[in-house]
Amino acid sequence: MIHVVKIGGNVVENPEMLRAFVKDFASMPGQKVLVHGGGVMASRLQKDLGMTPVMIEGRRVTDAQTLQVVTMAYAGWCSKHIVALLQAEGCNAAGLSGADGNAICARKRPPIKVAAAALPENAASPGPDEFRMVDYGYVGDVDASGVNAGFLHMLIGAGIVPVLCAINHDGNGNLLNTNADTIASSVAMALAGHGTAEDSVHDEVELTFCFEKDGVLYDRDDDSSIITEMDNEMFCRLRAEGKIADGMIPKLSGAFKAISSGVSRVTIKHARNLLGNIGTVLTGHAKTSTDELH
Amino acid sequence: MIHVVKIGGNVVENPEMLRAFVKDFASMPGQKVLVHGGGVMASRLQKDLGMTPVMIEGRRVTDAQTLQVVTMAYAGWCSKHIVALLQAEGCNAAGLSGADGNAICARKRPPIKVAAAALPENAASPGPDEFRMVDYGYVGDVDASGVNAGFLHMLIGAGIVPVLCAINHDGNGNLLNTNADTIASSVAMALAGHGTAEDSVHDEVELTFCFEKDGVLYDRDDDSSIITEMDNEMFCRLRAEGKIADGMIPKLSGAFKAISSGVSRVTIKHARNLLGNIGTVLTGHAKTSTDELH
Repeated sequence: MIHVVKIGGNVVENPEMLRAFVKDFASMPGQKVLVHGGGVMASRLQKDLGMTPVMIEGRRVTDAQTLQVVTMAYAGWCSKHIVALLQAEGCNAAGLSGADGNAICARKRPPIKVAAAALPENAASPGPDEFRMVDYGYVGDVDASGVNAGFLHMLIGAGIVPVLCAINHDGNGNLLNTNADTIASSVAMALAGHGTAEDSVHDEVELTFCFEKDGVLYDRDDDSSIITEMDNEMFCRLRAEGKIADGMIPKLSGAFKAISSGVSRVTIKHARNLLGNIGTVLTGHAKTSTDELH
Repeated sequence: MIHVVKIGGNVVENPEMLRAFVKDFASMPGQKVLVHGGGVMASRLQKDLGMTPVMIEGRRVTDAQTLQVVTMAYAGWCSKHIVALLQAEGCNAAGLSGADGNAICARKRPPIKVAAAALPENAASPGPDEFRMVDYGYVGDVDASGVNAGFLHMLIGAGIVPVLCAINHDGNGNLLNTNADTIASSVAMALAGHGTAEDSVHDEVELTFCFEKDGVLYDRDDDSSIITEMDNEMFCRLRAEGKIADGMIPKLSGAFKAISSGVSRVTIKHARNLLGNIGTVLTGHAKTSTDELH
């Protein structure tokens, strides 16, 4: 069994929460992979450098200078800091971008139509149209077919814990900024043998998303309203009702796709509760279409 | 045979020189390791963030904030950018800090005596003494015994080219800023079987330092005054005469130690000339003492 765990940027940025999480993650028996965010640090660094972060539908518009900043934040400080903490807990981790060992290859996102209403003030351009073409720049999309499961299996087999960030490459010399939730789902699917050439290797894979809430909430303003079990139908209903929105949509779309693609169990929980039972367990089969993953 | 190549921060910062170097390095047949600097970018980033780089005897005084900056520059942008370029040339590289896979463990440097005259203006403190105690902060010293040759051999054996930066860890959760020249020498010695527990593994190892000159110069102001062959006696003489100074001293001390410790060949050459013959070849046995390595 391989356990893929994802932590968000809010966890990475909170020294106390991060240290406690690292201790728990290191103590988890068996084979494992960590995927981490770092967006909070990246935004702070952008501001410290006089830049203005531009986010559209939860994704950072990434020009050349922003790409340097996110690469420094995610693959530099966040990755190496987490790995050093894990090493101190006796967990032999290795921090990787998708370029390293060609671990994950992404496709640069072409300019896409975005509802004008979704554009933030600093990205809005005048015009009568309801939709605008948005060029996200150095942003990449990933699915399980881009994951080099053989390389990850080699490391895991050697007792090394891959620690993946959301920086990947396109194979043509460009780094691309991707979504860490999508990385986690794609890696879990690839290790489970889905979408890869390695048909002979099928691991049982469990996927856990850790963030700063105890699970998916019925009511975003009530931290105790945890949904303990959720199937895809319920997800679609709550999404239509606007109860699930923003970053939770791609996180859950990817998670349900993972379940329908051979990943045994997907859980969403608080980072301080990695080893506990509180959280949202996703069940059943997904009805999401492929393009909902991103 | 394993070829360990080191490039300095000036090469990394020059897009044209870097691209040409990456092409040459990728085309080199056989097993290889790349070690890179990044000091030029780190200093620029410090300034962009309103910090003042403090260098004493060629080493950066590294407080907590500076450690974040150098980790972001070396292990973040420089490492991943180089790896992405190598991947595009068909070279399956993996960028690592010493924390990754516990590749290199360093010892935090205790406060040391430094000649008052060597202190830059922004680090000078008033006082009558000829020597001052300097705390370099999160700076680490490394030798071959800190290199995890087993991990590097595993990667190399799997066809992966390790790309090492000068960020290492102490095993207790701290990252440390080290010297990339010393990393290159230490890695070469460790892969040659020196100073490691792995007595059974002895590879023939060649070490090449690439920078923006054609070799070690008799006259620093005359780029054509290349010393084609140099033994340790000549090094000691030129150093005493002040003809070899600054960063060349630890580079050459480490290089001669590598020769006396089983590394077959050490060459110092221009980055654009990796595949050519122009350069300084170091010969003979070193008479340097251990502490001259750093």
